[in-house]
Amino acid sequence: MNGFILKGDIIYSKNREELLTFPGSYLVCRDGVSEGVYRELSDMPEDLRSFKLIDLSGRLIIPGMTDLHLHAPQYGFRGLWGDMELLDWLNIHTFPEEARYAELTYAENAYKIFIKDMVITSTTRFCAFSSIHREATELLMDLTEESGLKAYIGKVNMDRNSPDYLCETTDESYEETLRWLSDTEGRHYKNVFPILTPRFIPSCTDELMKKLGELIEERGLPLQSHLSENKSEIDWVKELCPWSGCYGDAYEGFGCFGGHGNRTIMAHCVWSGDEEIGLMKKNGVYIAHSPSSNTNIASGIAPIRKYLEKGLNVGLATDMSGGTTNSIIRIMTDAISVSKLYWRLCDETKKPLTFPEAFYLATLGGGSFFGKVGSLEKGYELDAVVLDDSKLETPMDGRLSLAERLERYCYIAGDSPVEHKFVAGQKLF
Amino acid sequence: MNGFILKGDIIYSKNREELLTFPGSYLVCRDGVSEGVYRELSDMPEDLRSFKLIDLSGRLIIPGMTDLHLHAPQYGFRGLWGDMELLDWLNIHTFPEEARYAELTYAENAYKIFIKDMVITSTTRFCAFSSIHREATELLMDLTEESGLKAYIGKVNMDRNSPDYLCETTDESYEETLRWLSDTEGRHYKNVFPILTPRFIPSCTDELMKKLGELIEERGLPLQSHLSENKSEIDWVKELCPWSGCYGDAYEGFGCFGGHGNRTIMAHCVWSGDEEIGLMKKNGVYIAHSPSSNTNIASGIAPIRKYLEKGLNVGLATDMSGGTTNSIIRIMTDAISVSKLYWRLCDETKKPLTFPEAFYLATLGGGSFFGKVGSLEKGYELDAVVLDDSKLETPMDGRLSLAERLERYCYIAGDSPVEHKFVAGQKLF
Repeated sequence: MNGFILKGDIIYSKNREELLTFPGSYLVCRDGVSEGVYRELSDMPEDLRSFKLIDLSGRLIIPGMTDLHLHAPQYGFRGLWGDMELLDWLNIHTFPEEARYAELTYAENAYKIFIKDMVITSTTRFCAFSSIHREATELLMDLTEESGLKAYIGKVNMDRNSPDYLCETTDESYEETLRWLSDTEGRHYKNVFPILTPRFIPSCTDELMKKLGELIEERGLPLQSHLSENKSEIDWVKELCPWSGCYGDAYEGFGCFGGHGNRTIMAHCVWSGDEEIGLMKKNGVYIAHSPSSNTNIASGIAPIRKYLEKGLNVGLATDMSGGTTNSIIRIMTDAISVSKLYWRLCDETKKPLTFPEAFYLATLGGGSFFGKVGSLEKGYELDAVVLDDSKLETPMDGRLSLAERLERYCYIAGDSPVEHKFVAGQKLF
Repeated sequence: MNGFILKGDIIYSKNREELLTFPGSYLVCRDGVSEGVYRELSDMPEDLRSFKLIDLSGRLIIPGMTDLHLHAPQYGFRGLWGDMELLDWLNIHTFPEEARYAELTYAENAYKIFIKDMVITSTTRFCAFSSIHREATELLMDLTEESGLKAYIGKVNMDRNSPDYLCETTDESYEETLRWLSDTEGRHYKNVFPILTPRFIPSCTDELMKKLGELIEERGLPLQSHLSENKSEIDWVKELCPWSGCYGDAYEGFGCFGGHGNRTIMAHCVWSGDEEIGLMKKNGVYIAHSPSSNTNIASGIAPIRKYLEKGLNVGLATDMSGGTTNSIIRIMTDAISVSKLYWRLCDETKKPLTFPEAFYLATLGGGSFFGKVGSLEKGYELDAVVLDDSKLETPMDGRLSLAERLERYCYIAGDSPVEHKFVAGQKLF
């Protein structure tokens, strides 16, 4: 039996509205899974008390966070937009840079930087697009596996409306996908799993989408893509799939929109209408809310309050490099910020996200895509990060509650490295 | 003759739309003032070449920034809002904390933290509200003077609609203001100057406002206050000053809205209408644009593009602790972000701020309130900060222009400490 005890100021979500706070308490890990939090050592079952105690008194201990959507090969140019919207930004910045990942030495250098930086954020799990290149995708999966982070990673599919230098034939795209899946299976990863990633409907022919839908039906693979980010994009999909009721219905028509137990993530959903919302609800689709990206590319503000009211699955995402930051803590505060503007400027019936709600989305909201992940409650895989707020000096020291200390840390130090990280009970640092 | 030369990658604004970039060039300082930037040592007048050269090759050298509005006694609780709007937030968080500054030992501890943190940001000049307490205000001025930062700092006036524990009588407020001004004069500060700071019209009686207006007329003092931040606040001012055409006109009625060569800063201006805009234009009022604060307290988005089109004076402000960050670099990117949402959600004729525009607002826009400040051009006071972007690894290294490196630094590392700082030619670190 393998276990340890972390002592510190522990916080996790009781539910969407409420934080549980445990000052100076004990979080127990056995075989990678939480045995729960105890306020006193003496409250703990006797067999756990012999575990090694790691004393982190005065530090904040919170669940690891999930980044539900990002593009790993875009990491190098985050923070560069000029003044572009989605479709221009893809053609001018994104596609030329992604094309470089055909070259493995370039990809290796770039992905090592990406992983090194991800390791020190609050993220313990992520879902990533790679590029169309099978070999670079496998390399990214190898590097992620070694890092100890857990992730779904996908080889991108693109067989139309893409520049020549970054476009596959339909057969090539499908064959390379099959080969990538079989290579991946052969590597027996513990931390990394494949996820189908057609870029978005404008980049994939009907034939390719249908083949991917069949793969999902055969093998139960998860899928992630983009949905209703930008109004021009939505109009384009309507032209490309005139038979569809809405953008989401186009994915549905190809068997690529969840349902039947198949897990699906759709990034953005800024402009989803009632039909699309109904389909997402029916199929259990996860929305990857990307407030930083939606602002940077001037897409708009996703109505997250509405989605929560309807009972949809929502998690948070950096969407690098539409989004700037690699930190889901920063994305939490961005999500709150844009929800305040949505409430003020768009719909005063949709009240802003609260801090506990944003924290829930960052942890349990996205974590549940990975199973029992995103909480420190007994029975959850033990993903935890440790935050040091002692350097954020304030004359109010000693007068702040645990929840206030956490809120303050997230707003002020959201982009800072965490102090320690545990993924499924494994200490990364 | 006292001077030095900084060698590095130099950037400053040519005008509102355009950045000037000088890779591996030489910035010369003589007696605290810029002698200009030279691409080669040999381009430099001979008498300057003997100055000591400080080699910062590979580093970004930019003008110091101006934070045009903040509340120093609120620094301790930045990042704590719960879910409040302006008026609740004042009563629940702000006023009780500000009241503590009656106690000098509390104020000293708090202001030392504030100044220590400000020194390492990109800010070289700021305009601050203190609290109503004269002694604590003088202490803040002493600490700022010692730090080498330059600032306008004001003792706050509040004689109505304020909690008992944070409310002056009209006479007391006026007398304490006079005493503070004479104490300040006696201290012969080099870096710090007084600025009148009536909190806002709801907190100050007509009588007090008139007396402050008379002080401005007599002594030519600058003034800063708050304007049109929140709709409930605007309605309240309309009730309190039913004779006024708009909120700005209420200040104007008391002689507290600039004009006649008197300099005035008004924070926020989220909801200013045409009459108010006209008055600000006529009187040369500076708008302290505070996007982080306006978002956090759910006030809205100030239409900065409109103000720029009308030729108004605009600078940037953290507005701590309505705003979270102490970094004007972060405020630059926040200003761009909210302007994108304004364009998308409020008015598609008002195009988003560009990166060069936001940089201009952060440097020359606010700096001009202090005189020839905010540029590295010959003749400007030499405020400069040095940024190290070498740790922000990217596979695109060597392919980014100077302007792209700066944009990337601002988006990714906006909250990070700067590497070196010079204020009017004095090296702080």
